[in-house]
Amino acid sequence: MESDTITVGVLGASGYGGGEVVRLLADHPSFDVRVVAAHASVGQALAAVHPHLAGLPQGGLTLEAVDAPSIAERVDLVFSALPNGTSSTVAPALLAGGTLVVDLAGDFRLPAEDYPSWYGFEHPAPAWLDEAVYGLPELFGGAVAGAKLVASPGCFPTPAILGLAPLLAAGLVEPGTIRVDGKTGTSGAGRAAVESTSFAATDGSIRPYRAPGHQHTPEIERGLALASGQEATVLFVPHLVPTVRGVVVTAYAPLAAGVDTEALTACLAAAYEGQTFVRVLPSGEMVDAKRTRGSNVVELQAFADPRTGTAVVAGAVDNLIKGAAGQAIQNANLLVGLPHETGLPAMAVAP
Amino acid sequence: MESDTITVGVLGASGYGGGEVVRLLADHPSFDVRVVAAHASVGQALAAVHPHLAGLPQGGLTLEAVDAPSIAERVDLVFSALPNGTSSTVAPALLAGGTLVVDLAGDFRLPAEDYPSWYGFEHPAPAWLDEAVYGLPELFGGAVAGAKLVASPGCFPTPAILGLAPLLAAGLVEPGTIRVDGKTGTSGAGRAAVESTSFAATDGSIRPYRAPGHQHTPEIERGLALASGQEATVLFVPHLVPTVRGVVVTAYAPLAAGVDTEALTACLAAAYEGQTFVRVLPSGEMVDAKRTRGSNVVELQAFADPRTGTAVVAGAVDNLIKGAAGQAIQNANLLVGLPHETGLPAMAVAP
Amino acid sequence: MESDTITVGVLGASGYGGGEVVRLLADHPSFDVRVVAAHASVGQALAAVHPHLAGLPQGGLTLEAVDAPSIAERVDLVFSALPNGTSSTVAPALLAGGTLVVDLAGDFRLPAEDYPSWYGFEHPAPAWLDEAVYGLPELFGGAVAGAKLVASPGCFPTPAILGLAPLLAAGLVEPGTIRVDGKTGTSGAGRAAVESTSFAATDGSIRPYRAPGHQHTPEIERGLALASGQEATVLFVPHLVPTVRGVVVTAYAPLAAGVDTEALTACLAAAYEGQTFVRVLPSGEMVDAKRTRGSNVVELQAFADPRTGTAVVAGAVDNLIKGAAGQAIQNANLLVGLPHETGLPAMAVAP
Amino acid sequence: MESDTITVGVLGASGYGGGEVVRLLADHPSFDVRVVAAHASVGQALAAVHPHLAGLPQGGLTLEAVDAPSIAERVDLVFSALPNGTSSTVAPALLAGGTLVVDLAGDFRLPAEDYPSWYGFEHPAPAWLDEAVYGLPELFGGAVAGAKLVASPGCFPTPAILGLAPLLAAGLVEPGTIRVDGKTGTSGAGRAAVESTSFAATDGSIRPYRAPGHQHTPEIERGLALASGQEATVLFVPHLVPTVRGVVVTAYAPLAAGVDTEALTACLAAAYEGQTFVRVLPSGEMVDAKRTRGSNVVELQAFADPRTGTAVVAGAVDNLIKGAAGQAIQNANLLVGLPHETGLPAMAVAP
Repeated sequence: MESDTITVGVLGASGYGGGEVVRLLADHPSFDVRVVAAHASVGQALAAVHPHLAGLPQGGLTLEAVDAPSIAERVDLVFSALPNGTSSTVAPALLAGGTLVVDLAGDFRLPAEDYPSWYGFEHPAPAWLDEAVYGLPELFGGAVAGAKLVASPGCFPTPAILGLAPLLAAGLVEPGTIRVDGKTGTSGAGRAAVESTSFAATDGSIRPYRAPGHQHTPEIERGLALASGQEATVLFVPHLVPTVRGVVVTAYAPLAAGVDTEALTACLAAAYEGQTFVRVLPSGEMVDAKRTRGSNVVELQAFADPRTGTAVVAGAVDNLIKGAAGQAIQNANLLVGLPHETGLPAMAVAP
Repeated sequence: MESDTITVGVLGASGYGGGEVVRLLADHPSFDVRVVAAHASVGQALAAVHPHLAGLPQGGLTLEAVDAPSIAERVDLVFSALPNGTSSTVAPALLAGGTLVVDLAGDFRLPAEDYPSWYGFEHPAPAWLDEAVYGLPELFGGAVAGAKLVASPGCFPTPAILGLAPLLAAGLVEPGTIRVDGKTGTSGAGRAAVESTSFAATDGSIRPYRAPGHQHTPEIERGLALASGQEATVLFVPHLVPTVRGVVVTAYAPLAAGVDTEALTACLAAAYEGQTFVRVLPSGEMVDAKRTRGSNVVELQAFADPRTGTAVVAGAVDNLIKGAAGQAIQNANLLVGLPHETGLPAMAVAP
Repeated sequence: MESDTITVGVLGASGYGGGEVVRLLADHPSFDVRVVAAHASVGQALAAVHPHLAGLPQGGLTLEAVDAPSIAERVDLVFSALPNGTSSTVAPALLAGGTLVVDLAGDFRLPAEDYPSWYGFEHPAPAWLDEAVYGLPELFGGAVAGAKLVASPGCFPTPAILGLAPLLAAGLVEPGTIRVDGKTGTSGAGRAAVESTSFAATDGSIRPYRAPGHQHTPEIERGLALASGQEATVLFVPHLVPTVRGVVVTAYAPLAAGVDTEALTACLAAAYEGQTFVRVLPSGEMVDAKRTRGSNVVELQAFADPRTGTAVVAGAVDNLIKGAAGQAIQNANLLVGLPHETGLPAMAVAP
Repeated sequence: MESDTITVGVLGASGYGGGEVVRLLADHPSFDVRVVAAHASVGQALAAVHPHLAGLPQGGLTLEAVDAPSIAERVDLVFSALPNGTSSTVAPALLAGGTLVVDLAGDFRLPAEDYPSWYGFEHPAPAWLDEAVYGLPELFGGAVAGAKLVASPGCFPTPAILGLAPLLAAGLVEPGTIRVDGKTGTSGAGRAAVESTSFAATDGSIRPYRAPGHQHTPEIERGLALASGQEATVLFVPHLVPTVRGVVVTAYAPLAAGVDTEALTACLAAAYEGQTFVRVLPSGEMVDAKRTRGSNVVELQAFADPRTGTAVVAGAVDNLIKGAAGQAIQNANLLVGLPHETGLPAMAVAP
């Protein structure tokens, strides 16, 4: 029924994140993609840029330039998958036009003062930072429901915060220093052709990158503080491994006295009971990015190592879905009053 | 000249580690493989089990059963690439016969009391543990030179100890708790066909395994104590990633006050100056397993994160060469009075 | 509504093909999986064997032994993903009980006399071969609609027949000898752990196998004859390449005089106009298995090489979906009177 | 001994082929790389562009611009790994200066009249085409020995010609039309970053490309004519598969009457008896690119399919070694009077 349809625009639709939003919305009962815009490939059909979308009606849409006022007039809600530093120049005009915005970039996730050091730019719209809700639906779904602008979390922060926050809040992990070791496939780096993510350079490669200054560091810290009320200091070291989709984070946190693996596991299980997309593994089982591929699922596990006073918390997601487009759709669902699970896949495409 | 030739036996020659010893020795000026033995494939030609060795004269050798007294009579030196728990049942008879032994398994790396808990067996030859030298040539080469039995280090401990030991010894890293996050390809799991390392199960997979009880944990602790005189407690969490060869370890250690990245890097550079196989990267550059593949090289880097009081030390090796067969050959070179570099590749096969 | 529900059993549910049937049916409006049976893992929960299905109600079903009479009493329709040679021992009892059967194995695709030479067994139920309909829905959908037993085609024959049949029928390709060169990932070999499909053996490998006697050879010949009325003799040479899902076939056929690329392309486009799952590429574009992954799509292209009198026809599918489980569901849809597209994905999960 | 040293320049040293020449020459007893030149990265140290060469003295050489007269004065022999169409603009000045030239590009492999249609350029130095020797050492080694300019064969033609030529010459395969289906990894496409060979685009991809006009088509035809005296017309269809190194060609040729698999195999075995780098597989065994990786080996197999009158000949090489740099070194060895095998690896780095 037309009156139930929410019209949607996707910015950055020529990239992997934007393409994934369009693909996932093909099965959605309420959202209808009417506008696809990007800085690259303007004037081409969407299906020419994403041939796997050829079978979809939206594959025939033409990529247009990112003209925020014009787009605001035509759609109810925008997913912005533009690069970091670009979303924040576009969102204000959309919001001013009454369009809801879900941002997949990092532009609305931090306080203004953090942007110069962690992202390398002065924030162009600091007033909107106070309006933005950090959209981790399983933790902050209530706040999202009434918002206009959602900062959808990054791929690494998603499993890190979901795994650590309940343990911090329950006092099973002590505030202090948490080291987070990340592993990711190449799709998180985006679609632009660069030698370091060519097949020849990546196959057989395992390598850290952009540490200790990766911009997801303060995002994890802030998300943990929001969710748990505890201040933790985070060191984050990401690594590239030879796969396309898939993120695993392994966090090393201070274990509270007397806490064992069962207590950690029970806390996580209780925190996410009934959540469709969170799979807390029984003690002794290990997360695997492969079991999340193609789905909006996050796998979580935790174990205690009393020898070293460490709680180890591991989480896995498909970085393009739960770590980007899928989570953005959860947030959009909440913005328009739908259950956050609406239209999203809960099973991986395996093997 | 025959009088300069050292005759060699390779036990476990049907597996990846044993096969790699034979392959690498093809270019060696002094070692001559005369005996290949294994528990599997007995009676087959070596080249039938390792078709890539068909071009080598040793490809025509027949795999024989592991009869230690008989082998001791026929060769000067044995590389044992038998599984954990098996080498220690075979080595005594070889040593009693006067044959030098380099063990690639974990059977001679720990004190006797550690075997039940970390390896799951009572050590069958504890008296030999005192004779065994831990063979990390760049740190303990002098001790190897006069030995009869060498415990060649494991794939993860090799880069972990090489990277951390000089920093601990110099006081740039404080003794305390060190978390070591490992990433490895599948070849470290050996050649036996199991579903978890099938192509279908591994492609697209990123997953932790066997933590916190992995047997390389006490080996790293002991190696660090031996090399630095400092006691550190280690938590080790390995992960499988989709590649065949390649190990990266990322260690998170307590940073001493006032120490910066340049100091860490300078310490490592000084410690390994002139070492053919150790490549200490300049500040800001990141290790990559791909740049070690096919070579006996270890890449090392370190950086300081004062925000969290952490020294991050990363190291990369080809787990079958510097992490196994190549390092065993370094040790064998030292046992017979040759320079440890003899006959070993210092350049990766890249891309 | 219960009265609209078709109850379903999946045999061979512990393997890749059976697991994929269950996964795809999760989104199906009419089929309800009630029974999962297998020869392996009997007594385990389905989600223990396929952890990615944990979120599905059917994940809680227990794998039971394959007891055909009992299963026939409980379900309306069975997908049999049992191994070649096993389906034909089970299907008769199911059919006798009034249950519809869609067979994913090769047991009902050939005349009885072909089984000893191509499959290595005497067919146990030759009378049923006459009842079986070869279920390539885009070509033989009408015949499927009234059947009880469907032989769902193999992964290689699917794109080969779809690509060649219209050209043969139109006389653009002459009957004669057609060479079909196939490339496939490892999932087509099934789930059993064998060394030749381990990650270490497969990564970096490109290799032909089981030629010239592969059992898909006579299936392609028969499918072409059925669809085109023309007799062609086929040589089929499959190759393994390092991927999990994905099949590409490249067929080299005799080009009729005066035929050019445009004529070949136009013929294919006309043959499949309006077909949801068949994507005929414009002249000059090349198929890619990646663009079919996770979907029921087949990509087809054709070009003429007058220099050598050859028509080259290439096709790509996801071997577990259009080459197995997805096509089986198309057939089941037709058996129960639904449009063949019902409940199946038309877009790849890319990148 | 200095008087035995042949001084060498490598053009195109910033790319994969040029880098591989430098790497392989590190173990060569006579060739000493003194000059590295390229169009890209001029002014950088070679080890900055190829970090895996850091351990080599030549890693310290500075990449210089391609100034042929200057280079001719400084070195005895040049390997040119410049792009197609560039080598032929540089080689004349080198040759005029008395420098021997081994060209890894396609610039001297065809008659002048073939360049516009197959390579897209008018040949700038047609006079030199008559001087150039096609350097497939196992077939034309005698002609190479006295030459000044060698056209080193392409990666696909190498196994195709080696596999087919003896069978054509012996009459086991009839002249006529041969279809050659090629499969290759990405390194053959060179080092430039393009989206189609990014990891995200290549992992999971199987796809034909540049057919039927690939420039290796006339090279195979000409090589077969030179080696066998028989004229065959070739259709060549290459495919990209997800690996870095490795080429397999599968050729479908007209089988002479009465010829069986054993006759084909025996013919190949006899043709290459005693050849270090050619491994003819026994009847029934299949080639594998993995068993050639890191080596200069070519694997060959052949079988007869009397049903379709086809001889199938398959060959596998490491495209960067036997298909490029290794074969170029074989040719250089012959140019200076050394055995062609000198300094080259005969064993793959496996697994």
